[in-house]
Amino acid sequence: MKEFELIKQFFSKQLVKRKDVVLGIGDDCAVLAPIENQNVVVTTDTLVAGVHFPLDTSPKAIGHKAVAVNLSDIAAMGAKPSWISLAITVPEVDEAWLEAFAEGVFELCEFYNVQLIGGDTTQGPLSITITAQGLTPKDSYLSRSGAKAGDWLYVTGDLGDAALALQQITGKVELEPQHISSIKAKLDFPKPRVLAGQTLREYASAAIDLSDGLIADLGHICQASNVGANIVLDAIPLSTIMRESLLIDDALSLALSGGDDYELLFTVSEDNKVGMETAMSHAGTPITCIGQLNTSRTISTTLNNKPTSIKANGFEHFSD
Amino acid sequence: MKEFELIKQFFSKQLVKRKDVVLGIGDDCAVLAPIENQNVVVTTDTLVAGVHFPLDTSPKAIGHKAVAVNLSDIAAMGAKPSWISLAITVPEVDEAWLEAFAEGVFELCEFYNVQLIGGDTTQGPLSITITAQGLTPKDSYLSRSGAKAGDWLYVTGDLGDAALALQQITGKVELEPQHISSIKAKLDFPKPRVLAGQTLREYASAAIDLSDGLIADLGHICQASNVGANIVLDAIPLSTIMRESLLIDDALSLALSGGDDYELLFTVSEDNKVGMETAMSHAGTPITCIGQLNTSRTISTTLNNKPTSIKANGFEHFSD
Repeated sequence: MKEFELIKQFFSKQLVKRKDVVLGIGDDCAVLAPIENQNVVVTTDTLVAGVHFPLDTSPKAIGHKAVAVNLSDIAAMGAKPSWISLAITVPEVDEAWLEAFAEGVFELCEFYNVQLIGGDTTQGPLSITITAQGLTPKDSYLSRSGAKAGDWLYVTGDLGDAALALQQITGKVELEPQHISSIKAKLDFPKPRVLAGQTLREYASAAIDLSDGLIADLGHICQASNVGANIVLDAIPLSTIMRESLLIDDALSLALSGGDDYELLFTVSEDNKVGMETAMSHAGTPITCIGQLNTSRTISTTLNNKPTSIKANGFEHFSD
Repeated sequence: MKEFELIKQFFSKQLVKRKDVVLGIGDDCAVLAPIENQNVVVTTDTLVAGVHFPLDTSPKAIGHKAVAVNLSDIAAMGAKPSWISLAITVPEVDEAWLEAFAEGVFELCEFYNVQLIGGDTTQGPLSITITAQGLTPKDSYLSRSGAKAGDWLYVTGDLGDAALALQQITGKVELEPQHISSIKAKLDFPKPRVLAGQTLREYASAAIDLSDGLIADLGHICQASNVGANIVLDAIPLSTIMRESLLIDDALSLALSGGDDYELLFTVSEDNKVGMETAMSHAGTPITCIGQLNTSRTISTTLNNKPTSIKANGFEHFSD
């Protein structure tokens, strides 16, 4: 296993040096000194080759995505990411692969001032587990459980593009050649809504990041908050490429249940609506109101102001 | 992937409810409120089936060991473990397996009041990654880098038994039938030296947990502290079963380079020696002085007061 020790060299090149890291990589544990009156938020996500990314995904994209999906969870809490631990299992030591992977990891870390504080390198089938941590002022964080009937339902960005990319890769959809790279970037290099999440901490009543698909993740908010929701399908934000590539029904199906978007889904009370929209506009984050919460404890959809049934994977009737 | 969501039910049964966990499993992140004037220590370890444990290891032992190896790192810092995140990748949903695995995880957690705060469940080749965190009074922790020439070298417990168990399993050594289960328990159910680590925080100059083998892990202390060490081989603590089962040379070889012991290796100044020995005696932790540090920047060994050469895997000349 000696050569696996060498993997550490690829992760020793980071530029981020946070003041709250007393002891970084290289001992039995990292030692952190979070400042007082903060909560620490913690999330863990695993990416398995062939399950969470296609086997031929570039190593840089894998590194990026492993960090991004974790920072997206931190963003959904309204927290500021601070530290990550990286456990990487690789079948063999491939220096070029590791270098590109580390580049993908560090690019996002440097952008958000997140320090790699440790981890483990082991031999086996390719898999990456990252535990990310973040900080938020004490008792000030977003959760899935604060939504109320009457609150407005919003998403950041466009939905379904990552799912569209997967359809293209698996040959289910043909895209215009000039669109392929920008759609594939939505799958391979998702941009976690870290700054938007922190802005929303002041305004949103509940939030979640869209990893499983809109319907499934909205179900999590509804279940945790004991509410229902109606989605106005006409309002779902779709990219121009999506609109040009698919019929509207197929496009909506990907947007509702495709997953892997890593946009934020959040709810806002009537009172906070204008303040939130102003703040998000200043932050430069595109947002769209896609519906409203109600007391039904189910998820419904309307199209052209008429109730419509949806067939979406990931949809589950959650009332008992 | 829906059935993988069901795995969560096996981890929802924990009894530990810590006051510093504001939000536990079930949201995008856990939310923690560490008390003030504490450092947080963090470690991550992955166990891959067939690499870090034999394929036929019982699920309860795998759960135990995944927690134990992480708590052992926390112990080596002199910290008190507090929270773990669990990422588990399994090839299929096997309820009996998962139940036994969870039992192994929770047994240690309950004993040390460690709360499972989240994680991820994915499908793929069996592998477990745990990120464990602990707390220690501010600026009070053990590291690998505080050892000084002249300090005494100690270990807790007996060395080499886990390696002996592996030799038995792979058919390289035959053990008396009545010894097999107790030796196998040393491999499958290692006991992290959590309380000993906290006691040592007051006395030791450096510490590390023995996962790679005595020589390799002593090398880490020597390198980080810029010292050398002499090990008195006659003093190496060996279990009665080890002494009865192997010739002394073979026993010492396992003790020096076998790994997987999860005992603590630590250094103590002459001034702190008596205080440490008294405290460890009160704590009920067996310890043995096995040598002394020097300025040589190499590791040497003596037997019967004479220098002796060792052939140990994991040994590496670390001076440059």
